[in-house]
Amino acid sequence: MSFDTIIKGGTIVTAADTFIADLGIKDGKIAAIASNLSDSPTVIDATNRLVMPGGIDSHVHIAQPGAVEVVMAEDFNSGTIAAAFGGNTTVMPFCLQKKGQSLREALKIYHKEAEGRCHIDVSFHLILTDPNPGVLGQELPALVEEGYTSLKVFMTYDDMVLKDRELLEVMAAARRTGAFVMVHAEGYDTIRFLSDALEAEGKTAPYYHGPSRPAAVEREATHRAISFAEITDVPIMIVHVSNREAMEEIERARRRGLNISGETCPQYLVLTEDDMDREAMEGAKFVCSPPPRTNDDQEACWEGLQHGIFSVFSSDHCPYRFAEDGKLTPKSAQGFRWVPNGIPGIETRLPILFSEGVSKGRISLNQFVALTSTNHAKTYGLYPRKGSIAVGADADIVLWDPEEKRTIDQADLHHGCDYTPYQGLEVTGWPVMTMLRGRVVTEGDTLLSETPEGEYLKRDVSPFTSQKQAL
Amino acid sequence: MSFDTIIKGGTIVTAADTFIADLGIKDGKIAAIASNLSDSPTVIDATNRLVMPGGIDSHVHIAQPGAVEVVMAEDFNSGTIAAAFGGNTTVMPFCLQKKGQSLREALKIYHKEAEGRCHIDVSFHLILTDPNPGVLGQELPALVEEGYTSLKVFMTYDDMVLKDRELLEVMAAARRTGAFVMVHAEGYDTIRFLSDALEAEGKTAPYYHGPSRPAAVEREATHRAISFAEITDVPIMIVHVSNREAMEEIERARRRGLNISGETCPQYLVLTEDDMDREAMEGAKFVCSPPPRTNDDQEACWEGLQHGIFSVFSSDHCPYRFAEDGKLTPKSAQGFRWVPNGIPGIETRLPILFSEGVSKGRISLNQFVALTSTNHAKTYGLYPRKGSIAVGADADIVLWDPEEKRTIDQADLHHGCDYTPYQGLEVTGWPVMTMLRGRVVTEGDTLLSETPEGEYLKRDVSPFTSQKQAL
Amino acid sequence: MSFDTIIKGGTIVTAADTFIADLGIKDGKIAAIASNLSDSPTVIDATNRLVMPGGIDSHVHIAQPGAVEVVMAEDFNSGTIAAAFGGNTTVMPFCLQKKGQSLREALKIYHKEAEGRCHIDVSFHLILTDPNPGVLGQELPALVEEGYTSLKVFMTYDDMVLKDRELLEVMAAARRTGAFVMVHAEGYDTIRFLSDALEAEGKTAPYYHGPSRPAAVEREATHRAISFAEITDVPIMIVHVSNREAMEEIERARRRGLNISGETCPQYLVLTEDDMDREAMEGAKFVCSPPPRTNDDQEACWEGLQHGIFSVFSSDHCPYRFAEDGKLTPKSAQGFRWVPNGIPGIETRLPILFSEGVSKGRISLNQFVALTSTNHAKTYGLYPRKGSIAVGADADIVLWDPEEKRTIDQADLHHGCDYTPYQGLEVTGWPVMTMLRGRVVTEGDTLLSETPEGEYLKRDVSPFTSQKQAL
Amino acid sequence: MSFDTIIKGGTIVTAADTFIADLGIKDGKIAAIASNLSDSPTVIDATNRLVMPGGIDSHVHIAQPGAVEVVMAEDFNSGTIAAAFGGNTTVMPFCLQKKGQSLREALKIYHKEAEGRCHIDVSFHLILTDPNPGVLGQELPALVEEGYTSLKVFMTYDDMVLKDRELLEVMAAARRTGAFVMVHAEGYDTIRFLSDALEAEGKTAPYYHGPSRPAAVEREATHRAISFAEITDVPIMIVHVSNREAMEEIERARRRGLNISGETCPQYLVLTEDDMDREAMEGAKFVCSPPPRTNDDQEACWEGLQHGIFSVFSSDHCPYRFAEDGKLTPKSAQGFRWVPNGIPGIETRLPILFSEGVSKGRISLNQFVALTSTNHAKTYGLYPRKGSIAVGADADIVLWDPEEKRTIDQADLHHGCDYTPYQGLEVTGWPVMTMLRGRVVTEGDTLLSETPEGEYLKRDVSPFTSQKQAL
Repeated sequence: MSFDTIIKGGTIVTAADTFIADLGIKDGKIAAIASNLSDSPTVIDATNRLVMPGGIDSHVHIAQPGAVEVVMAEDFNSGTIAAAFGGNTTVMPFCLQKKGQSLREALKIYHKEAEGRCHIDVSFHLILTDPNPGVLGQELPALVEEGYTSLKVFMTYDDMVLKDRELLEVMAAARRTGAFVMVHAEGYDTIRFLSDALEAEGKTAPYYHGPSRPAAVEREATHRAISFAEITDVPIMIVHVSNREAMEEIERARRRGLNISGETCPQYLVLTEDDMDREAMEGAKFVCSPPPRTNDDQEACWEGLQHGIFSVFSSDHCPYRFAEDGKLTPKSAQGFRWVPNGIPGIETRLPILFSEGVSKGRISLNQFVALTSTNHAKTYGLYPRKGSIAVGADADIVLWDPEEKRTIDQADLHHGCDYTPYQGLEVTGWPVMTMLRGRVVTEGDTLLSETPEGEYLKRDVSPFTSQKQAL
Repeated sequence: MSFDTIIKGGTIVTAADTFIADLGIKDGKIAAIASNLSDSPTVIDATNRLVMPGGIDSHVHIAQPGAVEVVMAEDFNSGTIAAAFGGNTTVMPFCLQKKGQSLREALKIYHKEAEGRCHIDVSFHLILTDPNPGVLGQELPALVEEGYTSLKVFMTYDDMVLKDRELLEVMAAARRTGAFVMVHAEGYDTIRFLSDALEAEGKTAPYYHGPSRPAAVEREATHRAISFAEITDVPIMIVHVSNREAMEEIERARRRGLNISGETCPQYLVLTEDDMDREAMEGAKFVCSPPPRTNDDQEACWEGLQHGIFSVFSSDHCPYRFAEDGKLTPKSAQGFRWVPNGIPGIETRLPILFSEGVSKGRISLNQFVALTSTNHAKTYGLYPRKGSIAVGADADIVLWDPEEKRTIDQADLHHGCDYTPYQGLEVTGWPVMTMLRGRVVTEGDTLLSETPEGEYLKRDVSPFTSQKQAL
Repeated sequence: MSFDTIIKGGTIVTAADTFIADLGIKDGKIAAIASNLSDSPTVIDATNRLVMPGGIDSHVHIAQPGAVEVVMAEDFNSGTIAAAFGGNTTVMPFCLQKKGQSLREALKIYHKEAEGRCHIDVSFHLILTDPNPGVLGQELPALVEEGYTSLKVFMTYDDMVLKDRELLEVMAAARRTGAFVMVHAEGYDTIRFLSDALEAEGKTAPYYHGPSRPAAVEREATHRAISFAEITDVPIMIVHVSNREAMEEIERARRRGLNISGETCPQYLVLTEDDMDREAMEGAKFVCSPPPRTNDDQEACWEGLQHGIFSVFSSDHCPYRFAEDGKLTPKSAQGFRWVPNGIPGIETRLPILFSEGVSKGRISLNQFVALTSTNHAKTYGLYPRKGSIAVGADADIVLWDPEEKRTIDQADLHHGCDYTPYQGLEVTGWPVMTMLRGRVVTEGDTLLSETPEGEYLKRDVSPFTSQKQAL
Repeated sequence: MSFDTIIKGGTIVTAADTFIADLGIKDGKIAAIASNLSDSPTVIDATNRLVMPGGIDSHVHIAQPGAVEVVMAEDFNSGTIAAAFGGNTTVMPFCLQKKGQSLREALKIYHKEAEGRCHIDVSFHLILTDPNPGVLGQELPALVEEGYTSLKVFMTYDDMVLKDRELLEVMAAARRTGAFVMVHAEGYDTIRFLSDALEAEGKTAPYYHGPSRPAAVEREATHRAISFAEITDVPIMIVHVSNREAMEEIERARRRGLNISGETCPQYLVLTEDDMDREAMEGAKFVCSPPPRTNDDQEACWEGLQHGIFSVFSSDHCPYRFAEDGKLTPKSAQGFRWVPNGIPGIETRLPILFSEGVSKGRISLNQFVALTSTNHAKTYGLYPRKGSIAVGADADIVLWDPEEKRTIDQADLHHGCDYTPYQGLEVTGWPVMTMLRGRVVTEGDTLLSETPEGEYLKRDVSPFTSQKQAL
C-alpha cells in the first residue's frame, strides 16, 4: 500500500477507543490504520499527539443578517479559518429564511456567500421563519431529498418566532419528510413581558438581559417544544441548553421514551450571569441567548454531558463586533434589548471542553470526541463520511497536544470578532494541526490552505428521523 | 341559651374532627355545639346522621352562554335547587366577560340572572376574555375591593383563549390586586392542530374529542401556566385536572416551593375515555374538557386528592341538553368539534366522592369535608363564614345518611339537563337534608324553600394572595 | 346548661378551624362550644388568646435508663411539670424492654415510676429489644388488647439494635396484632464503622458525632425500614427525621402508595451540625441522634411539615445533665462515642414550632394544632378523647398568647436538665395556661396542680393498622 | 505489510463506529485496518458479515462448587467451548473463597481447574466470603498488584452472605487497594423471612422462588449497597439487575454524582416470573437470583441498557443439570429453597441481545458492541488489549451474520447443561466464526481449536477506582 500522507505514532482517539497507531491517507480518505505504515511522500510525526476526528460544529452563525440591524462579524472566509485553527473540519451554519422568502431563495444567497470562501467543509441547516403551506408542502420535501435534512425553529425573536400552531405544522412536516428539527427554546411572550417590566423600572444595563429571560422561561419553552414533539411524534434537538431545569425537562422526556436530544455550549460551562454585570457596556460582551446562568447550572450542564442527556457540544458562534458598528451602536447603549444576542466561540470550543472536561477529569477522551465530532456527524446525517477515524472516512483530522498550556487571548484568535468572552481563560490542551480531507489547513499558528478547499456537504436524513435509533 | 333550631345527636364532621354533639342554630348562625342542647321550637333528630358543612361547589357554570351557539341548560333557579338536593349550600358560577365587554357590564347581566332565583348562596368568579388595560388597571382593582376576588382565564376555546402575553398580564394584575387566578389549562393551538388532523381523516365521532386533546396537551398547558405563575410570582389554581401527567406538574411545582393549587372533578374519578366511545351520538353525553382519560389517570386523581395536591373537588357542572336544541343540534352531528364541552354534575358531586372515596376507604370523612367544603371556603375567601361547623358560621348544613344506597338515575335529579353521565352508578351515602342559614331547603326528595333565599356573597381576598399561607 | 368552668372569648383553633367562641367544661370534658356561655362558678377570660388542644408529645424519654451508663435527667414528676409549662397535656414516653426481660416486667417498672407522679396524662409506647417468640406471640397480642398499641424498634444502639430478621418478625407481629410500629432509622454497622474510623484518626470531639452518622446512614436505614414495612404490609412511623434525603425516602414511599408516616423535631428545624462544633465539650449539649444537619436539611424538614410528609412534630426529649454525672462523666470526655445521645426539649417544642412556623408564616395555625396535637392523638389511638377542641373530648386545653415574645432561657425552664440547647432563641408566642381535664395545671410561671392528677391512658389501635385510613 | 490472516470486506463495528474495511492480523494482534489489504497466506471472506470484537462475558460461574450440595454443570473446557460458539473470546468466572480459606488457596484451586482447559481467554474475579483482616490487609493488596483487580460480595446465600460491617470493610479495603467491587444485591434476612413464611403455607413449588425474593428485596439491598459505596467513597457495580425499582436506585445514585455501574442479563429481558410457573418441576429450569420479573421490568431493563444505566450485559451463566444429580436431586423436589439458583446462558447471550436489541431496533450496533465487549474490557482493566477492533489489540474477533435466523435449541448448544431456558426462542443474527488472538476457534458448528489455547489474563485496576473516569 502506498499513501499520500502518513501520520505516524499518534494516539488515535475515537468515540470509543484510544490506541497508538499510524494513519495512512490516500485521495483524501483514511485508507489505513495500522501498526507500522510506510511508503508515503509525506510523513507527519504525531508522537505524543492525539489524533482525533476534526471537530464538527453543528451550531454556528456565519454571514447571517443579525438582529436589531447589526451585521454579523463573520463571513465564510474568516469563520472557517477560525474554525480550522480551533480544530474543526466541518461547520454547519444556518441558512435563514426571511418572512416572505422561499427557502430556495435563501439558500441561493447563502450558497453564494459560502462559495469559494470556505477553508473547511460546510453544510447548512435551514431556519424556517415563514412555514407556509408551500414551504412545508413543496419546498421542504424536495430540499430534504437534496440533502438539506435539518431545520431550526425559534420560539422567540421578533422576526423569527413561530406561533405554537406553526411549530406544530413544522414538526408535522418534519415527520412527513424526515427533516430533523432543532429548537431554540425560549418563550417570546414572557421575554417581552419581562423586558418591558425591566425597562419600566429603568433596568436596561446589559446585566438585565439575564433577568429578562430567567431559567423558568427556557424551561417552559423546552417543555412546550418537547410536548409538541411528543404530539407530532418526531425527534427533536433542544439546542444551547443553559440550565438545570431545562436539562431536566429533556431528561424526563427521554425517560418517558421520547427521542429528545440536547446540546450545550461553552458559555454555559465557564460563564455565569455575573459576567454580564460589568462596568459600562463591558457586560454586553457576554450577552447571548439563553444567557449564562449560575454555578449550579454550570454543574448541571456538565451532568448533562456526562450522562448523555446532551449528545452534542457546539459553539453557537454568533459574533458581533463590540467596538464599532457592532454592539455599541448607539442603539445598544439604549439598553439590553438592543444588544445583539450572540458571542463568538467557533475557535475556542474544543480547547475549552478539552481543558475543563478531559484535563480536569470530568469526561473521558472518548466522550470528548463523541461530543465534539462523532455525535454531530451521526445526528445530522454526515456519518460515516465525517465524525470518526475510520477507514473510508474523509481524512478530516485534528492533531492535539494534550499538554500544551495556553491562555486564551483575542490577539491569538482568527475569528471576525474583536473580542473573546473567554479572554484570559487558561486551558490545557490545544489543536496543533488541522487537516481537511488529507490536506493540512492549519499548523500551529500558520494557515497553510492556500485556497479555500472546503466543500458543501449534502447530508443523509438523521438516523433519528429514519428509525429513531440510538447513536 | 335558646335557639331557633337544634340538630340533635348527629355526628358532626369537620375537616379535622368527628364527634357526636348537638348543634344549636340562632339567627341563621351556628350558635352552639354542645353535648345536650334544649330550648328550641324546632328539633331535628340527626341520630345516625353525619352533620357536615354544606357543600361548596366552586366550579359551576350556570346560565352562561355556551360555546358553539348552544344555550346552557341551567338557570339559577334550577341550578341551585339541584345543588341543594345534592347537599350544597353555596355555588360559585362564573361571570363571563365577552370580548369588548366591561366586567361591570358582564356582572350586571349575571346578577340580574341570579337575582331572586337562588335557593342557596352564590358568588361569582370573573372570566376574563378581554384583559385590556382598562379592565386590568381600573375595573379589576375596584371589583376585588368589592368582593369579586377570583378570576378565571382560559388557555383554549375560540372566544375565550388568552395569548401568553395576556395570561402574564392578567397574573401581574392579580399580583397587584390580590385577585386569585384559576386556569383552564389546555393548549388551544395543539387542540386545533389535532382536531384538524382528525377531521381530515374523517374521525369526527364524539370519541375523537379525547384524541383531539390528549394528556400531553393538558400537561403542556399546565406547565406553561405554572411557569407564568412562577414568573409573575402569584399563586394559581389549576382547575379540573384530569390525568397523572398534569397532576405531577402541580406536584413538582409545589415541591419547588410554588403555591400552586389543584382541583379535580367527579368525571375524572369515575368516567374514562371509553365512555365517549358509544353508539351513535351517545358518546356526546360524556364530552367535557379536559376529557375523561384512563384508569391509571383515575388512580392518579385519587392520589392527588389523598396527598393534598388537589385541595378542592368541584363539579365543573356545565350542562347542555342532549335531546333537543342541545348537543344534538344539527351541528353536533357534524362532528366532535361541534359538541358543546360540558356535562352536568352539580347534584351528584358529593354522593360520588362520598361513595367512591369515604365508603371505599380511599379518603377519610374529614378529607371529604375539606375537599367538598372547607377548602373551597378558605381558598376563595368565604371562610370562616362558610365551610365548617363552627360557632359563628352560617348554619349551612347537610345531614348525610352514610348507609343509604342509591342508584343514580336521571329521573331522580333536579338539574336542568336531560341526562346524567353517571346514570346507573351505585352509591353508598346520600344527603338527606340541606339547610341554608338555618332554614331547611331540601328534605329527602322534597324542596322546602318556598321562595329562593340564596344571597350573593362578597368575598375576602384569598389567603394565598394575601400571605401565601397554607390552608 | 351549667358548667364547671367557662373559657370566654378566646379564639378556638382546631386542625381545621379558627373561630371565636366560648368553651364550657363540665366533669373534665368539653361540654359546649358556643357564642355566649354563662352559668359557671369559674370563668376564664381568653380574650386575645388562642384556645387550642393541649400539646401531645408522642416522643419523649422519661426515667429511662440511659445509654453508656448515664441516668436520664428526668422523672415523671419533673418531666410532666415541664411538659405542662410547655403547653402539653399528654406525653407518651417509652417503656424499654431490656434483653431477657418480658414486656410485662418492663411495664411494671415504668408504671411504678409513673404512678402518682404525673401532672399530665401519660401513655407508654413499648420498645422491643428482645423480640423472641414469646414476646411476639403471646405478650404483644395481649398487651395490644390492653391498650399498649404502639411499639418502637431501633436499628442502632448497642443494647437495642434489632437484626433485620428481627425487624421483619416484629413488623409481621404488628400486622397480626394491630400494633403500630415506630422506627429509629439509623444503621448500626455503618455508625460503628465510621466511629471506629474517626477514632482511629483521633477525631473524638463532640463535633464528630455528626460525621459518624451522616445523612446517608439515616437515608439507608429509612429505606430499609420502609422496604421491610412494604414486604410485611404494615404502616410504620419513621421517627425524628433529620434531613432531606431521609424525608424524600418517605415521600417516595407514600407516592408508591405505602402508608408511611414521618415525624420531625425542633432540633432539626433550628440547630445544625455547627452547633456541635463548640469549644471544649460545649458541643456535647447538642448531641442527639440523628444529629442536626445543614441549613438545607432544615429547609427540607419544613417542606416535610408543609406537605404532610411529616404528620407529627415531637420533641424526642431525652435529657442528660451536662455538668455532673451526665454528659461530662469522665467517659464523655473520652470522645463523642461516650456522650449520651439526647437533648431536652419537652418544654420548648410548642413555642419553637409556633414561633418559627406560625409567626414566620411557614405553616398555618391549623397545621400547628394538627402537628402538635391532633395527629398524635389520631395516629396513636387517643382520638377523639384527646387531640382536639370537640364536644365530648377531655378538656385538655392550652391558652396561648400569640404575641408574647420570650427569649428561651434555662433559668425559666422546669425540666430536669441543667441546660437547654435552645438557650437564647427568641420566640414569639407562648403558652399562658395549661388545663388538664378541666383543671388548671399551670398558669404563667406558676404550677397550680397541687397533686399530680395525670392518668395513664389506654389506647385504641391506630387507624392506620386497622384500615390504613388517612388522618 | 504482510499478515498472518486477513479478514476481507467485512463491516467492522466498534462501540462507536461502523465501516467496511479489511483487517490484517499478525502475531495474534490486529495489525492493520485498511481499505484493501493483501499479502497473507490466509484470507477470510467477511462480505456481509459484521466484524466485531469477541464477546467478553464478565459474569460467569464455571467449575464453582454450587449451593445446596450440587455441582456446577460446567468445567473450563466445556464452558469456554460453549462461550466460543456463542461469539465470546474472554470469560471472567469467579474464584470463590470458602470461609476459612485464604484467597491464594482458592486461586490455586481455580487456576488448576482452568489450566490447559480453556479455549478462550480467562480472568478471575475473587469472591470474598471471609473478609478477615489478613485477607483485606495483606492478601488483597498483593493480589490486586498481581492483576486480580476485582472482587464480588454477596448480600445473600447462606455460605456467602456478608454482614453489613463486612461489606463496609471490604469496600474500605477496595478503596485502599484499587480493587473494583461487584455486588450481588439481594437481602438475606428478608429472603429467609419470606421463604419461611411461604414454606409455612406449603408454597414450595419452583414458582415461589419469585415471591420469596420480590423486587423490593432487591431494591432494598441495592440501595443499601449503594449507600455503603457512598459512605466508603468507592465505585461499585450492581450485578444482574432484574427490575425497574433496582434500576432506578442506580439511576438516582448516578444522578447524585456517585459512580455506580449496573449490569443486566438475558434472563431479565426475555423471561418472566411466569416461566417458573410450569408443570411439575419444569419451572425449576428458570430459577435464578434475582428471579425473572414482569413485562414492565423487562421494559425497565431495556431502558437501563438504552440510557447507560447498565453499562455491561452479561450472562450470569450458572448452570446446573436438570435431569440427574442436578436440580432434581431429591432435595430439589422438597421445595424451591433446595433448587440451586442459576441457569445457563454463556452461549446464547450475544444472539439474544443482538436479536432482541439490534434486530428489533432497541439499541444500535455500536451499543451492542459496547454492552457485550468494550465496556467489560474497560470496566475490568482489560482494555485496550481486549474489547475493541483497534490496532495493537488482541485479534479476538467474532464474525456475525446479522441475517441468520435460528431457533435456540438445546440440541445445538455446547454448554455442560442439559437444557436451555431459551429453548424455542427465535433469533435473528448469529455468530459464524470466533477467533482468539488470530486463530479460529469455532467456525459454524465446528470447533477448530485442536488444543485449548486460552490464556489467563492479569488485569489493570479499573479506571473507575483509579480516577473515577467515565468509560
